[in-house]
Amino acid sequence: MADPKILESFPNPAPGRDYVIEHTHHEFTSVCPITGHPDFADITVRYIADRKCVELKSLKLYFHAYRNEGIFFEAVTNRILDDLVAVLKPRSMSIIASWKARGGFTSVITATHTKGRSRRRRS
Amino acid sequence: MADPKILESFPNPAPGRDYVIEHTHHEFTSVCPITGHPDFADITVRYIADRKCVELKSLKLYFHAYRNEGIFFEAVTNRILDDLVAVLKPRSMSIIASWKARGGFTSVITATHTKGRSRRRRS
Amino acid sequence: MADPKILESFPNPAPGRDYVIEHTHHEFTSVCPITGHPDFADITVRYIADRKCVELKSLKLYFHAYRNEGIFFEAVTNRILDDLVAVLKPRSMSIIASWKARGGFTSVITATHTKGRSRRRRS
Amino acid sequence: MADPKILESFPNPAPGRDYVIEHTHHEFTSVCPITGHPDFADITVRYIADRKCVELKSLKLYFHAYRNEGIFFEAVTNRILDDLVAVLKPRSMSIIASWKARGGFTSVITATHTKGRSRRRRS
Amino acid sequence: MADPKILESFPNPAPGRDYVIEHTHHEFTSVCPITGHPDFADITVRYIADRKCVELKSLKLYFHAYRNEGIFFEAVTNRILDDLVAVLKPRSMSIIASWKARGGFTSVITATHTKGRSRRRRS
Amino acid sequence: MADPKILESFPNPAPGRDYVIEHTHHEFTSVCPITGHPDFADITVRYIADRKCVELKSLKLYFHAYRNEGIFFEAVTNRILDDLVAVLKPRSMSIIASWKARGGFTSVITATHTKGRSRRRRS
Amino acid sequence: MADPKILESFPNPAPGRDYVIEHTHHEFTSVCPITGHPDFADITVRYIADRKCVELKSLKLYFHAYRNEGIFFEAVTNRILDDLVAVLKPRSMSIIASWKARGGFTSVITATHTKGRSRRRRS
Amino acid sequence: MADPKILESFPNPAPGRDYVIEHTHHEFTSVCPITGHPDFADITVRYIADRKCVELKSLKLYFHAYRNEGIFFEAVTNRILDDLVAVLKPRSMSIIASWKARGGFTSVITATHTKGRSRRRRS
Amino acid sequence: MADPKILESFPNPAPGRDYVIEHTHHEFTSVCPITGHPDFADITVRYIADRKCVELKSLKLYFHAYRNEGIFFEAVTNRILDDLVAVLKPRSMSIIASWKARGGFTSVITATHTKGRSRRRRS
Amino acid sequence: MADPKILESFPNPAPGRDYVIEHTHHEFTSVCPITGHPDFADITVRYIADRKCVELKSLKLYFHAYRNEGIFFEAVTNRILDDLVAVLKPRSMSIIASWKARGGFTSVITATHTKGRSRRRRS
Repeated sequence: MADPKILESFPNPAPGRDYVIEHTHHEFTSVCPITGHPDFADITVRYIADRKCVELKSLKLYFHAYRNEGIFFEAVTNRILDDLVAVLKPRSMSIIASWKARGGFTSVITATHTKGRSRRRRS
Repeated sequence: MADPKILESFPNPAPGRDYVIEHTHHEFTSVCPITGHPDFADITVRYIADRKCVELKSLKLYFHAYRNEGIFFEAVTNRILDDLVAVLKPRSMSIIASWKARGGFTSVITATHTKGRSRRRRS
Repeated sequence: MADPKILESFPNPAPGRDYVIEHTHHEFTSVCPITGHPDFADITVRYIADRKCVELKSLKLYFHAYRNEGIFFEAVTNRILDDLVAVLKPRSMSIIASWKARGGFTSVITATHTKGRSRRRRS
Repeated sequence: MADPKILESFPNPAPGRDYVIEHTHHEFTSVCPITGHPDFADITVRYIADRKCVELKSLKLYFHAYRNEGIFFEAVTNRILDDLVAVLKPRSMSIIASWKARGGFTSVITATHTKGRSRRRRS
Repeated sequence: MADPKILESFPNPAPGRDYVIEHTHHEFTSVCPITGHPDFADITVRYIADRKCVELKSLKLYFHAYRNEGIFFEAVTNRILDDLVAVLKPRSMSIIASWKARGGFTSVITATHTKGRSRRRRS
Repeated sequence: MADPKILESFPNPAPGRDYVIEHTHHEFTSVCPITGHPDFADITVRYIADRKCVELKSLKLYFHAYRNEGIFFEAVTNRILDDLVAVLKPRSMSIIASWKARGGFTSVITATHTKGRSRRRRS
Repeated sequence: MADPKILESFPNPAPGRDYVIEHTHHEFTSVCPITGHPDFADITVRYIADRKCVELKSLKLYFHAYRNEGIFFEAVTNRILDDLVAVLKPRSMSIIASWKARGGFTSVITATHTKGRSRRRRS
Repeated sequence: MADPKILESFPNPAPGRDYVIEHTHHEFTSVCPITGHPDFADITVRYIADRKCVELKSLKLYFHAYRNEGIFFEAVTNRILDDLVAVLKPRSMSIIASWKARGGFTSVITATHTKGRSRRRRS
Repeated sequence: MADPKILESFPNPAPGRDYVIEHTHHEFTSVCPITGHPDFADITVRYIADRKCVELKSLKLYFHAYRNEGIFFEAVTNRILDDLVAVLKPRSMSIIASWKARGGFTSVITATHTKGRSRRRRS
Repeated sequence: MADPKILESFPNPAPGRDYVIEHTHHEFTSVCPITGHPDFADITVRYIADRKCVELKSLKLYFHAYRNEGIFFEAVTNRILDDLVAVLKPRSMSIIASWKARGGFTSVITATHTKGRSRRRRS
């Protein structure tokens, strides 16, 4: 299981300003939990930092840790968001996972967190 | 007739968050009800799940079932939306059907459903 | 003169829903009324149908009828909009005419009609 | 100096409707007032006509008249806007000048005029 | 250290109008402060000038001065914004730094300043 | 089974000249003989006619006849070549079948016939 | 019928050198002799001039003259080649006609003439 | 180690004709033997079959088996060629491995085998 | 008239090797000798140097000197070749002039000189 | 000065086969020896190895060493070729240096070495 403890941060160099940081990883790969076939995605992390920025090399290693994990598109997108929110406590953050062709489909999953809003709503 | 019973679902892994799932099928084909000539489209299903997510392989088989059906662009787009809304009961859903060149035309039909709004308005 | 009587319609299969229909004709050609040289455009018809949808083959023949007509960019865009509004009585409609290079220029004319708003304003 | 008297107009064929006319000239060239080197731009004129539309051939000749004039990016964009507003008195108009690579830079200058708003604000 | 004193300005030729000036430098390069490896970016400066416009050649020399400086993506974006705001006092300004692939990632940092808003908020 | 008798021809209008005719069909679809899933291809017919040219509408109907046939990539390419060579007796002909993504693969099969060369070689 | 007498020429400015002249007309249109529907093509004229070069405006008018003529792809390509060879007597010439989508097909017809080779071969 | 025994074949349906089969796998990934970081490539197998064609699903599984193997670009390209030649005994075969960006580099390795030529030359 | 004396050269740094130098100027503009309208081209100079290489800034100034000259496509291409051959005496040289759209046409003129071959042939 | 001693090699894993290795570095930058302005290029190293292959990380460091060196396009291309040939002794090698826009020009320099051919010819 990809361990969020891999993630490192450094202090936001401009905490007095709301500015947007966006990192897109073009080499994400995991495995379909049903067929065992590989899946490939571009994963974008877009956020407004509060006190911490994510260190890029640690983010790469965190993503590499999914290489042989079986996980669904919807679940992995939400888990990455939860892990990064827990470590960075950003003012807001979106994860956009854009999956390469699989059985004639491409897929995009987009999940957003805003600080101060409770993650869970009653459903 | 493409049977919505083909469609399968699995539980939404993050029901407490409104996030967007988008699947685009690049290999939809049906038949013109007048000329019998084949039509080709990219069909996008974009939705915010409530309790259920659509299982991708079943969605592929549901789309394959239109292969030899004669149906107009406007009708098929609305029927796919109605079928998926009935099965998934999403918080909201859009179907975007983008048709390849036919007689010098390309066409895009976009239909949206939002939960809690009655489908029918008096017209 | 392109005759709007060429245009045929069929009943909207989902009149209870406001959904968007967009047809783009990639082979529109008319003639410059001053020089007699041919002009070429992509014409997009985007509308929300009320009771009637435009039949695509009749729309093609209506566009073909402009082949040897001399008419300015601004005038033809508005005339197509007026003709289609008269026949279909849509909830709303836009015509977007995108003209190929002519003397170092490309041009785009975009005109919109919304039902219930009087076409004419005092000017 | 490019003379706005070159500009000709014709009556708006649909003055009762607010619709958008957009002409993009792909062959604009002037000269850097400091180095004398040529500059190249795409110039877009986007406007809602009131009573007059600009005649395209006269607009071409007006742009050609800048060929050997030395003028800065910011100044030429505003001058074209002022000249066209004076001649056409449009409901609104934007000029978008997109300059080709110069010393490792590309530049885009966008200026907008809306009728009834005084051009000058106190600064 | 890139010295903001390199930056030169000239008077805004149209101070009575809020219009947008955008310069994109396609040849920005600095050095990773950790590995010493080169980084490459397109840097866009988009602003509404008040009394001063930035002189393009001086902006190029200012960017060239980063060539051998070790600095993080987030820090350099904010520093360029602070330097340009100090010199030009624009009505508003955004810096968009778009970094080429590094370790499988591309990154975009976007920071905005609006006149009259204090730069710092309590954090 | 797609019947080569569907194919029609008309007399070559320039039999005294070796010139190249190339038709690419962008809407070929057949079915995988193992899984039953649809396959999609662009099929190019490139030939030097002798006495006969293929009539385009009949070629379209011939291709449409593969819609529900289960056949492998290698076999269908060679069969189309054999059928067209039998009907047209061209001076030379190539079939290039370019298959859309299937399980992470794209495929291109290219087969050529030259008149007077025996089809079969001893192998 | 498009009349080759429209075609004008001027003396080759460098007859002592074999160099290649290539003009591509992006606005060719004629009519299908069977259905009456318009066809569209890019037509390239590539040649090594001997004593005469084709004058470009007359070539445009010659191509415009096909606008309402019903003619097949193969026939028109060979006729253009024959007409231009008769007027210019080039050292060699190719006509490449690239037709836009028609019924799911695109087509390219390429015919070549070389001086001193008899046009007709026994067939 | 990726085992060539995974590879399956079926009889060439047209052994009497030299025709070209080309499969491109867009999802190849292996691991750098030094750093352990993932590498990504498009691998093209282009060959003229003799008696056997490679079965596509088995080729996919053979490529998937490299997922966690540490191997250099040059070595893996030659090994794939040797394995496929041993199983299929093709008339000729090329492997083209096109590697995604790694440290500012992209790489392409192309190796070819022709039947009857001894693989090894004295070096 | 553009004066070849503007052209400067520097000694070939590797005269013992036949290697290819290619410079493409993307900002060539001259004037139509008939209509006075501007023409635009990309001009490529591709050559194998003997003792001299062309200095790039002088080549730019030489090209700028055509800005207000009226000259035909065919003539200017051959004149540039003659001027550069006279100054540089290259082992071989080609000029490729690629002209932007003019009246629905794009044009490419390609002329080549090889050392030791007399420029003129009897015609 | 970039020191060829930085370059490292490893044994060719398939010395019995002539196969092509191609590495393209997308981040080469040096400095104009006259103006001091930065230049940017993509540098391709394409070769058939004999006994040695170049190690990619050492090649990157070798290219980085040009960062602050003033050198002309023609000279640097030939020097890279000479350095790599001296270290690797390949069967053949080409260097293709493709320079980004500079003063309205792009440039490509291509130099090739073949083993056994003396580098110098009498000039």
